[in-house]
Amino acid sequence: MNSRTDSSLSMPPVIVLVRPQLGENIGKAARAMLNFGLTQLRLVAPRDGWPNPAAGPAAAGADMVLERAAVFNSVAEAVADCNHVHATTVRKRGISKPVLDPVGAAMRIHQDKGRHAILFGPERSGLETDDVALARTIITIPINPQFGSLNLAQAVILLVYEWSKTQHLAQPTLTQELPPAPQEELDGLIAQLEAMLEPAGYFSPYSREVATRRTLHTVLTRPGWNHLEVRTMRGVLTTLARQRRNDESRS
Amino acid sequence: MNSRTDSSLSMPPVIVLVRPQLGENIGKAARAMLNFGLTQLRLVAPRDGWPNPAAGPAAAGADMVLERAAVFNSVAEAVADCNHVHATTVRKRGISKPVLDPVGAAMRIHQDKGRHAILFGPERSGLETDDVALARTIITIPINPQFGSLNLAQAVILLVYEWSKTQHLAQPTLTQELPPAPQEELDGLIAQLEAMLEPAGYFSPYSREVATRRTLHTVLTRPGWNHLEVRTMRGVLTTLARQRRNDESRS
Repeated sequence: MNSRTDSSLSMPPVIVLVRPQLGENIGKAARAMLNFGLTQLRLVAPRDGWPNPAAGPAAAGADMVLERAAVFNSVAEAVADCNHVHATTVRKRGISKPVLDPVGAAMRIHQDKGRHAILFGPERSGLETDDVALARTIITIPINPQFGSLNLAQAVILLVYEWSKTQHLAQPTLTQELPPAPQEELDGLIAQLEAMLEPAGYFSPYSREVATRRTLHTVLTRPGWNHLEVRTMRGVLTTLARQRRNDESRS
Repeated sequence: MNSRTDSSLSMPPVIVLVRPQLGENIGKAARAMLNFGLTQLRLVAPRDGWPNPAAGPAAAGADMVLERAAVFNSVAEAVADCNHVHATTVRKRGISKPVLDPVGAAMRIHQDKGRHAILFGPERSGLETDDVALARTIITIPINPQFGSLNLAQAVILLVYEWSKTQHLAQPTLTQELPPAPQEELDGLIAQLEAMLEPAGYFSPYSREVATRRTLHTVLTRPGWNHLEVRTMRGVLTTLARQRRNDESRS
């Protein structure tokens, strides 16, 4: 994957299907994408492997999207080169993140420089809390509260349709702001901090470890730090860690 | 059929599937309708008769819409009680009628009193010219000109989604976010970190100290962390500092 971030606005978003169950839905999602001019599809651990013979017929001619689809083992790998990660959910989550509706999400993708990824969860259950923790924002489609069962390809088409609308808007004035660092740089920062916190007992008791790590991810994902800011924070951590080693060597 | 027109605005539109071919698409259209609170489905001469055993499973719980579906022999009969008839088409027609996009159509349905019907044609061919001739307006979804094959249920969901937005016009924006912490809490966090970095030599050489502190302030101000997030970060720092003291006391 090329992790260079484009300097122009309105890079088309990447659609990431996380653990999709049915090949038919993958094909329909590809068709929906191409209906509005999107071609970058990524699959995380598709249940029935890949390629899937049910996808092609459902794509109804959008084979080009399926042929280019990239497959990953984890969400983290799938979004490593993305500057902005958005998670689609229907239900409310115990995570405090900014929530956008499809219009707000489309405007954000239109305005914020860099590569955006939109995560969609498996048909039956939606995204897991850990997947959502990786994202900076949550996208929720305002839907009939008495009937919230939205088909995967239908969710995809609503978001790409809203995105396509922004392509006809005049471009906003260029801000000089750098885009957020690619997700893999942020992951490196978080890993460095976790490695320092672990021996200090930050993650004990064991029963709360998962929740504690998730909270830390959320707090550090929120800033949208750019490449230079991530480097600054890594410098801070390196300084603190080096001092510990100095202390130890003096002891 | 009750042909009385309601005097209030925003009567929910009637969805009319004209000669639909696949039961599965009828079920998916019903599901899409109920997703956004619509329940009035009408079928004109469905190819495989009605009821269709493939519709139920595809409706994924929207059975109520299928059970209430009314079947007609002709488009004229299906829209006899409707005050406004809109025909969805992808291709341009040789008929001169007002053309609306989904947003324009939703506004029209929201504003023009009476019952609105939206006609959708068969999967393979779309509406025939005679069907379109019955309509007062044409609705066209602006789509990739290189890939205009839009699934029937996808076309339905885009229009009912746009309609649903007009129902929420008065609703506030979706955000459950906590506000950023008061500045003094952020300052407390920054002071704690600076106090840890100082003895570690982070701010030397002296000539660059002001710039280095400024950078750190900028990086930590950017997130807009809320009260809970600031507390989390202070906990992280306290853990790292405590470990240092433990190291020192062991020495």
